[in-house]
Order: sequence, then C-alpha cells, then structure tokens
Amino acid sequence: METITSLHNPKVTVWRSLRDRKGRMETGSFLVEGRRSVEEAIRSGASILSLILQDDYTEPLPQLSAPVYRVPAHLMAHICDTKTPQGIAAQTAFPDFPFRGGKILALDGVQDPGNVGTILRTADAAGMDGLILSDSCADIYAPKVLRATMGSIFHLPCQRVASLPDRLSQLAASGIPVLASVLNGNPFFAVLNTLPDSFCLVIGNEGNGISQQVQDVCTHRLTLPMRGDAESLNAAVAAGIMMYALCSRNEWGGA
Amino acid sequence: METITSLHNPKVTVWRSLRDRKGRMETGSFLVEGRRSVEEAIRSGASILSLILQDDYTEPLPQLSAPVYRVPAHLMAHICDTKTPQGIAAQTAFPDFPFRGGKILALDGVQDPGNVGTILRTADAAGMDGLILSDSCADIYAPKVLRATMGSIFHLPCQRVASLPDRLSQLAASGIPVLASVLNGNPFFAVLNTLPDSFCLVIGNEGNGISQQVQDVCTHRLTLPMRGDAESLNAAVAAGIMMYALCSRNEWGGA
Repeated sequence: METITSLHNPKVTVWRSLRDRKGRMETGSFLVEGRRSVEEAIRSGASILSLILQDDYTEPLPQLSAPVYRVPAHLMAHICDTKTPQGIAAQTAFPDFPFRGGKILALDGVQDPGNVGTILRTADAAGMDGLILSDSCADIYAPKVLRATMGSIFHLPCQRVASLPDRLSQLAASGIPVLASVLNGNPFFAVLNTLPDSFCLVIGNEGNGISQQVQDVCTHRLTLPMRGDAESLNAAVAAGIMMYALCSRNEWGGA
Repeated sequence: METITSLHNPKVTVWRSLRDRKGRMETGSFLVEGRRSVEEAIRSGASILSLILQDDYTEPLPQLSAPVYRVPAHLMAHICDTKTPQGIAAQTAFPDFPFRGGKILALDGVQDPGNVGTILRTADAAGMDGLILSDSCADIYAPKVLRATMGSIFHLPCQRVASLPDRLSQLAASGIPVLASVLNGNPFFAVLNTLPDSFCLVIGNEGNGISQQVQDVCTHRLTLPMRGDAESLNAAVAAGIMMYALCSRNEWGGA
C-alpha cells in the first residue's frame, strides 16, 4: 500500500481527469465512488486498476490484486465527484463484455445524465440484453450517469456507436424489427404481441425525439397512448413502460 | 394595468412568498411561470388571481378578467423561481375540481420534487383519475414539481391527506383493491388481469418504500419482475410501468 499526499502526484492527476470524458477516453477507465459501488464493481468482475482509500478508511478491504493507495481527505475530495465520497474509490477499466443480440435498447441523443443512468438501470431490471447509444448521448461513464445506474453498468453490455443510423440499418437488414418510439405512430399495445422475441427499441432525445435519419431506418413507428392532457412522457418513463411491456409479455396471467 | 417598481410593494411580497409552501398555504395559491404554462393554466380554466408581466413583454395577452401588473426585470427575477422567467407569471388559485373514484394513484412519502412532478404527468397521460399524496410527499405546487408536471397539474385531481393509512382504509373498506408496489410481493403481471377497473395503486418513498402503516391497509402486495442484477427501479419509472399496464390492459392486441 502506497501513501500519496501531494496534489501534484501524477496518479492524482490521472484520477482527477476521469471526471471528464476526455480523461476517461484517454485512459479507457472511469472512477467508481463509494463502498457499495466499488464492491458491486468487484463482484461483477470489473477490472480494477487502482483502489483509492482515504487515510481514515477502516472498513474491511475486498480481496483484490490491484494496487491500493492511501490519500488524505482533501485529496479524496479533489479526485471524487461526489461531495461525500465515503472514503473509497476505484479506477476501473471500461467493462468489456460481449454484445449479443436479443432485446436491445437504442438511445438517440438522450442527453440528460440522470435519464441515461435511469434508463440503463431500468433496461437491466426489465431483462434487456444490450444498450446502444448514439454519439450524441450523455457518456455512460460520467459521474452523474453512474450514480443513476446503481451498478447496472457492470451487468448490461453497452455500445457507443459513431453512426446510429448505420448500426440500426444493419439490425433491420438482419430481420430485427427496429421500433421507433414516436408521438404520432401506431398504438404500441395493439402491436405488442405481434413482435418477435428479438427486437431493438429506439428512444429519442428528451425534447426533439428521434432524429429523422434514425426514423428513416426504423421498421415500426409506435406510440404509447396519451390520455388526459399530457403531451408527452419523460424519456426514462416511456422507455421503462415499453421495455417492461416487451419483456414481460409472456407473464401476463389473469382471469 | 398597474405598474409596480418597488421591491417592498405588498403584492411583490405575496408573490415572492409563493416560492415557499407556507406562503402557498396562507394564500391558497401558487405561481405559474412562463408563457406556455400560463396559457395552459388559463386554457384549463384555472382561477388566475394576478397576471404579472415584465415591462418589456410584448407577446399578445390572453383574454382574462384578472388584474394585470407590469414589473421591471429585476422584480420579475425576484418573484420567479426560474432563472429565465420569460417575462410572464400568474398567481393562480389551487385547482379545485371534484375527486372522483376510478383509477387512483397514491404516493407515500415520495419526496423528490422531480419524481412527484414526473409521476403526476405520467398519471395524467396513462389515464388515471386522481392522485392522493401523503403529507410527507413533496408539495405539488413547489416550483420544481410544477416544472416536471408540464401542465398536468391542471388536469388531474390531487388530494393531500393528513393520514394516508386512514384514506386507504376507507377505499379498501369500500371494496377498492389497494395495491402496494413492494420489493417482495406477488408477480405484478400475473395478477394484472384479475383486477377490476377501479383500483388504488400505492407507490412508496424512493429509498424506504411504503411505510409499514400503509402496507398494513393494502389489500395486495405486488412486485415488478427484476431481471438482470438491478435491485430496484426509480419510483417514477415503476409508477409509470404499473399505471400504463393497469390502464392499457384492454388495448393489448396481437397475433
């Protein structure tokens, strides 16, 4: 275990740089903050590059081959994004697990970090198999996104693609229905049971919806019913309703 | 039209007081900010008590019997919660429309203003008939809640109750199923089609779920499937999934 006390230590500079996308991209890693999140990362088999402990951290340490560093409280605060970082953080390599087909969610320009994190967490819970993000989405490794994912980032394969229209065209060409969630499409619940087990659901930007280039490659235009006088739904809520309906179709029992 | 220029004008003091729950409760009114929201309030037949315009506001004014006041920009900023209040605001009486039965949502200690606002908006869109809030919920007339409701506050009857267990007991006693959304209950989708058209769905606090006193009076304990490794869902997302499934049961078509 090494003790670091200087703000100018190169390791501190790297850890602090993980707050920004540039630093994350350059190192291929991100910072996991807090005991529960670090334990979740380790439990999920994520590759921990450095474990960073505040000097007064006394909780039992996880079994780990990564180097461990002790830092004073002001250095911990300098490195971490959270105001109360709980004395433990881990520089962690981007998860790299195979992206298989199946039930896929694609996000087109979803920019609010809380929305992206909540959607990722919901996709994991609903039983989706993977997430594709357009390059205009919030970075899934940004601190605010990570806090909203509640650990699901370690379970759900995620792909950020340079061209979402190209990626979705490939899926459509291979026979996968690509379902655009739009405002004036066909009734979602009416077609639900006609869809196969493998599909790609596309959710658009909070204000502008799905871009025209992406809509052009979608095979279905679907809309949730809007009763009352509401004009639209929050992107994370709409995504949750559609994913759960699609993933739970076979569980509907009843009278 | 009256022009007000002094920060110490009693009307300014009242408008500014609407930022806080105390001021709203004392006046029975709240502040609607921005052109779209004010138009929505008027269109919905809400009772406007004062229309407040910034002195350089030049958009056409709605037909209205309420008194109109002109104020300079710094007074507008002092009154409004939004940073860019768009030059128009309206002191508006609490909506007072009849609370009928039917499809009811009850919130037990949902404290995040964004969650409460999003849930209200989703309830309106899903086709719910009313919302009951425990006294420990965020105030639906707080500025942050209003922004998240996107106008649904003017369409969905809402009741804040001193004792949620008492209110739900009454519903249960009158034969309405009271459905607790909990973590270890019966599978939600399996019982969905056994439920009648009138029901009350209960959503709990973001961290602690539904309080024991409320759980004790619920007639059903229901749980959404949790696949992946997610432990729970965001309260607004869970509410949205359940409300849409309950309100759209009859629209499911398919193969």
